[in-house]
Amino acid sequence: MGKIEAQGLPGYELALQDAVAGAAGEACPPQLGRALHYAVFPGGARVRPQLCMAVAAANGGGDAALTGAAAAAIELLHCASLVHDDMPCFDNASERRGKPSVHQVFGEQLALLAGDALIVAAFETLGRAAGAGDPARLPALLAVIAEGVGAPHGICAGQAWECEPRVNLERYHRAKTGALFIAATAAGAVVSGGDVAAWRRLGDCIGHSYQVADDILDAAAEASEIGKPTGQDEVHGRPSAVRSLGLDGAVAHLKALVDASVEAVPPCAGREQLQQLVRNQSRRFLPRGLAGQAA
Amino acid sequence: MGKIEAQGLPGYELALQDAVAGAAGEACPPQLGRALHYAVFPGGARVRPQLCMAVAAANGGGDAALTGAAAAAIELLHCASLVHDDMPCFDNASERRGKPSVHQVFGEQLALLAGDALIVAAFETLGRAAGAGDPARLPALLAVIAEGVGAPHGICAGQAWECEPRVNLERYHRAKTGALFIAATAAGAVVSGGDVAAWRRLGDCIGHSYQVADDILDAAAEASEIGKPTGQDEVHGRPSAVRSLGLDGAVAHLKALVDASVEAVPPCAGREQLQQLVRNQSRRFLPRGLAGQAA
Repeated sequence: MGKIEAQGLPGYELALQDAVAGAAGEACPPQLGRALHYAVFPGGARVRPQLCMAVAAANGGGDAALTGAAAAAIELLHCASLVHDDMPCFDNASERRGKPSVHQVFGEQLALLAGDALIVAAFETLGRAAGAGDPARLPALLAVIAEGVGAPHGICAGQAWECEPRVNLERYHRAKTGALFIAATAAGAVVSGGDVAAWRRLGDCIGHSYQVADDILDAAAEASEIGKPTGQDEVHGRPSAVRSLGLDGAVAHLKALVDASVEAVPPCAGREQLQQLVRNQSRRFLPRGLAGQAA
Repeated sequence: MGKIEAQGLPGYELALQDAVAGAAGEACPPQLGRALHYAVFPGGARVRPQLCMAVAAANGGGDAALTGAAAAAIELLHCASLVHDDMPCFDNASERRGKPSVHQVFGEQLALLAGDALIVAAFETLGRAAGAGDPARLPALLAVIAEGVGAPHGICAGQAWECEPRVNLERYHRAKTGALFIAATAAGAVVSGGDVAAWRRLGDCIGHSYQVADDILDAAAEASEIGKPTGQDEVHGRPSAVRSLGLDGAVAHLKALVDASVEAVPPCAGREQLQQLVRNQSRRFLPRGLAGQAA
């Protein structure tokens, strides 16, 4: 969604640094501290925290520390889910963000603990920022963020659909991928006093696009381009837009979803700018050779 | 710490039921929902939530819903840590609370996800209770509870010391076992407006006793008595009070620690009653044959 601050680090990146420095501080077992840092830095595209901050900015902004903390919490939870998803009992992925996955470097025990500690750090970060300012918005912020990661609607539930003999595909995709985008837009609305329900719909649309784009990347990109193994949907027999619609069909579907996302931006002071950001960001979801077709 | 409510279920048990019913609701993947329920019910001794509520009561009580939620959050986090600690990459424990461990019944994937979802549910529970009342105490409550489970001072850090070549024994024990007792007493103080620092010291003392009692149980109890395998400290080469002091020495040490815990109860309206509860509860920590000696 574009960096919010022209100079220096954006607020979510500072909040991420604070959160990891706190968790991995002097009293921390050294290897766990290193694993926490490794799981969060350097980041991927930081799409979710940027989206959260862009929504807050489009609504005229909120308390800067709480906004940065909300965005950082969402990214910490995303990082935790990547660490746990890569573990041998799930995807057994050896690479993530172009480097060996956390359990490859630190072992399974520390990967499990680092993921747990990142989940805790996310909520701790929210509490600390709200405690330094006005706690009035903290309960709503906790609610929208927890909904995006826990059960029955969040990432944990999304992954758990993979363990079921019969999968509710819509719930599976919305929980596994969409829920954290919904959390990002909803959290941006909560901190800035926006209409949470309207902003949730935008997150749902963007999450849906992202899921389809991820399916396309898995099928059509090079591993070197996305920093993780490709072809995994085929290997694990997972449902995928490419497997359902073919590659061209999936790209056309994505184009329609991006248009829907642009339309779903609610009325707000910064609507046109945010629509442009949504369109630009969507182009970055795709393999380079396909980006022109879809956006 | 004795049941707080003479009739019906205590507040933390109702809050646990609400939290699990919410997470494992209709939209939840069915196996994950069953795993969440299995991990929390029926409970063990519920020592930590009872301690939290006893501290709040000794200080004249706080908002009942927030107190129950705080106690339940601590128990949910305790349950999450048990599920993850039992997994094959850690203790590979086949039994817990007298029944097969979560990963034995539901598999490793669902055990990992259930633990994650319980952590999220804990924080969600706090937010929901604070949102229905006054959110002013929520930041402090989040802080003391997160500190007890995350890094660098909480359970995650405690487990992670087991991965280090050189272990700081005091930090290891305090983080692995003491931290959640400290969270329990501190949370009870936060919700009731008590002196948090003074109540933390009580939690630290009780946690220390509990660690020594746990070492004694591991060495001297029957598996059938404690519902999990015994002799694990020896098997895993873990530091233990019994390995350091011998069984008699450890029992004498525990007696001194229980006396210190009783003295550590801060001045409050219900001091004598709480001291009696601490003494009674400590007796329950021990194998039946040794309980008379130590308490």
